Amino acid sequence: MSQVLKELRENPLNWLLVFVPGIFIAEHLRPESHTALFLLSVLAIIPLAGLLSHATESVAAKTGDAIGGLLNATLGNLTELVIAITALRAGMLDLVKASVIGAVVTNSLFMLGGAFLLGGLKHHKQEFNPANARTQAGMLLLATIALVIPSAVGRVDQLNVTSFMQPLSLGLSCILLVTYALSLLFSLKTHRAEFASAGGGEHEEEAPWPLPVALGALAVATIFIALVSEIFVGSVQQAAVTLGMSKAFVGFIVVSLVGAAAEMTTAFSAARKNRLDMAVGIAMGSSAQIALFVAPVLLILSYFVAPAPMDLNFGGGQVLIVLLTTLTVSFVVSGGRSAWYSGIQLLAVYAIFAVTAYLLPG
Amino acid sequence: MSQVLKELRENPLNWLLVFVPGIFIAEHLRPESHTALFLLSVLAIIPLAGLLSHATESVAAKTGDAIGGLLNATLGNLTELVIAITALRAGMLDLVKASVIGAVVTNSLFMLGGAFLLGGLKHHKQEFNPANARTQAGMLLLATIALVIPSAVGRVDQLNVTSFMQPLSLGLSCILLVTYALSLLFSLKTHRAEFASAGGGEHEEEAPWPLPVALGALAVATIFIALVSEIFVGSVQQAAVTLGMSKAFVGFIVVSLVGAAAEMTTAFSAARKNRLDMAVGIAMGSSAQIALFVAPVLLILSYFVAPAPMDLNFGGGQVLIVLLTTLTVSFVVSGGRSAWYSGIQLLAVYAIFAVTAYLLPG
Amino acid sequence: MSQVLKELRENPLNWLLVFVPGIFIAEHLRPESHTALFLLSVLAIIPLAGLLSHATESVAAKTGDAIGGLLNATLGNLTELVIAITALRAGMLDLVKASVIGAVVTNSLFMLGGAFLLGGLKHHKQEFNPANARTQAGMLLLATIALVIPSAVGRVDQLNVTSFMQPLSLGLSCILLVTYALSLLFSLKTHRAEFASAGGGEHEEEAPWPLPVALGALAVATIFIALVSEIFVGSVQQAAVTLGMSKAFVGFIVVSLVGAAAEMTTAFSAARKNRLDMAVGIAMGSSAQIALFVAPVLLILSYFVAPAPMDLNFGGGQVLIVLLTTLTVSFVVSGGRSAWYSGIQLLAVYAIFAVTAYLLPG
Repeated sequence: MSQVLKELRENPLNWLLVFVPGIFIAEHLRPESHTALFLLSVLAIIPLAGLLSHATESVAAKTGDAIGGLLNATLGNLTELVIAITALRAGMLDLVKASVIGAVVTNSLFMLGGAFLLGGLKHHKQEFNPANARTQAGMLLLATIALVIPSAVGRVDQLNVTSFMQPLSLGLSCILLVTYALSLLFSLKTHRAEFASAGGGEHEEEAPWPLPVALGALAVATIFIALVSEIFVGSVQQAAVTLGMSKAFVGFIVVSLVGAAAEMTTAFSAARKNRLDMAVGIAMGSSAQIALFVAPVLLILSYFVAPAPMDLNFGGGQVLIVLLTTLTVSFVVSGGRSAWYSGIQLLAVYAIFAVTAYLLPG
Repeated sequence: MSQVLKELRENPLNWLLVFVPGIFIAEHLRPESHTALFLLSVLAIIPLAGLLSHATESVAAKTGDAIGGLLNATLGNLTELVIAITALRAGMLDLVKASVIGAVVTNSLFMLGGAFLLGGLKHHKQEFNPANARTQAGMLLLATIALVIPSAVGRVDQLNVTSFMQPLSLGLSCILLVTYALSLLFSLKTHRAEFASAGGGEHEEEAPWPLPVALGALAVATIFIALVSEIFVGSVQQAAVTLGMSKAFVGFIVVSLVGAAAEMTTAFSAARKNRLDMAVGIAMGSSAQIALFVAPVLLILSYFVAPAPMDLNFGGGQVLIVLLTTLTVSFVVSGGRSAWYSGIQLLAVYAIFAVTAYLLPG
Repeated sequence: MSQVLKELRENPLNWLLVFVPGIFIAEHLRPESHTALFLLSVLAIIPLAGLLSHATESVAAKTGDAIGGLLNATLGNLTELVIAITALRAGMLDLVKASVIGAVVTNSLFMLGGAFLLGGLKHHKQEFNPANARTQAGMLLLATIALVIPSAVGRVDQLNVTSFMQPLSLGLSCILLVTYALSLLFSLKTHRAEFASAGGGEHEEEAPWPLPVALGALAVATIFIALVSEIFVGSVQQAAVTLGMSKAFVGFIVVSLVGAAAEMTTAFSAARKNRLDMAVGIAMGSSAQIALFVAPVLLILSYFVAPAPMDLNFGGGQVLIVLLTTLTVSFVVSGGRSAWYSGIQLLAVYAIFAVTAYLLPG
């Protein structure tokens, strides 16, 4: 337990944990101050996500390679999943969809671009294994195709009808989940050695917690994220109006930056230490996981927890954005080397999308 | 002749030849059983296509490198061409268009994906010459652009009019045919050596037939494919309704799988033998040939044999699918190496498109 | 001065300078002969652009590396800029937009394709530095995304309204200019060495002029291009009607071929001399510069000199064309090697777009 406390002190992100009790007090005292609650909930989720991430890694480190890898792969985006499930239960399907697209875009462009930029400012030229990056870019590409096809076909062939969209969305979700399961078999079992360099170093970073502590932290952090997400989801719409942000911008940029904050600090610090394989692995792996695993799980869950089932019919702009993101990232990583300007290129594309989302009405 | 018979016995695909007389008997006895005729014609075309393919290779092997390469390149997709011409004469332009797009998609995703998967299950990692694969992917990319532009420009600029579509389609077809002719000059003449490894091994597989036998088999197989295609095309629409398949699915998936069955067995067996250059060459070369050669030939032929001329205006969904296919394949082959999961990625994209085509109404 | 005259005699392009006085006489005598004036102005601009290009290089060579590189980078497309500003002042925004897209497409496909073809006819196989080509392709890709997003989002989400388009276009222009400025920092300062081979040889070609002569030639050529552009822009619409060319074709093909003629002769001659890094650098660098620098500068200038401000809302066909161009070029250059058929592939894609633009009504 003292180890947990020691770490809490050492990582400045953890100081934000003070906002966790803060948000519940604030909600009790001023339930109508949506903007304040929104900002506080953002500040509270970030350290919780960091805690969750470290707890997951600790459990993974203790349970051996195969189960550990599986845990890391499935719980790696638990924060995004918990926030999205809360929004799903509230029937805010548009927010869920925007946050899925936004998470792919943010992880691919902002996280990877930031890692390239920060790493490149310190090191003249950086190299990474292009074969791994290609495999992950390929996974991202196929998941993107699954996300793009329903909206695109529905739109161009005038088939925006439930009888077409729902079976198609369910069918594609199953394909994605099977492909995801096989990717775990590939990277954790049959071709484990090739992927070792990418993720292997992750556990050296911080000492893992003992198993009971880690499991406890995992449970507690998840519960608190769920509770704070309720406040976040409840306040986000009003706050967006007050702050002059479009709904698209909130789901697309704000939610996904919040959800990815913890992984971002890890990826950025890995890039600074010239461990680019790890930085690329976190950013691309996280994007691929959102698209291949989180999105279909949310779609299937929506049949049980949401007022109306979700489908994969995204707004036209979102479809184009996710497709252009995948193309950009596939192109940038396929060379296997980066410099600071590679990061600027990815961040510029992110800025283009962010400005567009900001100006979209509604 | 005894050699022909020996081979017929050895290749299990050839046992399906029994369906060739079967289909004609069935058509005589039960001309109204569309579903049965459809299934029988599928089973009869597959071995005929295999025979045609072997006869073409035998003629090519006997006539020397330059003419042989040319024969292989122009007759390699004769089965698809004969089926499509039959459909063209019956005025089923939508079926022809769907089968062209479907052949590109099936050869690129299903054939190549299957080869990567089957090869990768046997060999941990496989390599192939990325430069050849890139040249063929480039050819596929430019042909895809020609297929995509008329529909896309027509659609976004509201120009779905014959006076724009027909001259544009004819003009683009001429560009494609010239580019195709130059590609033969490139791969068979000026840069022959670079491509040698890819196709050179093909003839070692099976002993070529003597020239008269081969020419005879070529003629007989073509005639029978034409005859069976008549029954196939005549029964496909009714059968599709009975079997609950959309027209898009039949043209897109069924016709193209049938047409490519013979090449598929060759490509899969090459991949199992770790001759990946050959497998990639067959799959990508076949896709490029359909798009660069078969499609413009069909368009020009339609002015002579079809009730109304064909154009390159495809349904919106088809255009997107062929574009995404080309992007996926270009990305996957540009690394020059594969494992079983590369195959899964291509097959998953194929499954996404197949499910979409299946659920499309009409 | 004698050096200037000697060079004028030696470069056959310069004989076209006789059309410069010719066009002013013709305009005086026959102001209503639009077609003749149009053709004469094309013939007059080409040698002026060559003069301007050589003057810029001479100034760059004399002013040292950093400022010289900056001058080359900003004045390299001065001809395109001057023509476009003239059209902007005349309120012909469609022509300006078409010429921006056309310049990207012409430089990427026609100039690069021509260089690959001409170089490949002389040399069996040519190699170039793929890392530089990738960086430039990445710049082109991100600029293309900025050009594509407003039209695409506006179209699919029915937001073709000034209140959305104008702030978005301005915002994206600022992102492009910042990215462009950073790219100069990258290629001229922090990673100068990596880019040295690509542009370094350029000055060996012809002896640079003394600084006063170069500055004088720069000023005189710019003034004459501006004057001839007035006649060009004034006659182009009438001439297009007479010559049976659509407006899209004129802006897209004619204007951009005229503007790029000078760079083209340099790129082609470099490719013949097997200096492919230089040829690729000129073609891709010029495309990227148009998209990243000229387009946003024109947009911002339009608020000051045009009757109505310009936006980044292009016709649907143009958006698709520039996107497909970027994908094709990114794919073709990422291998780092070329043969004559690589040039054919790029030129075939260019021909596809040219035929489409020619047949577009209006």
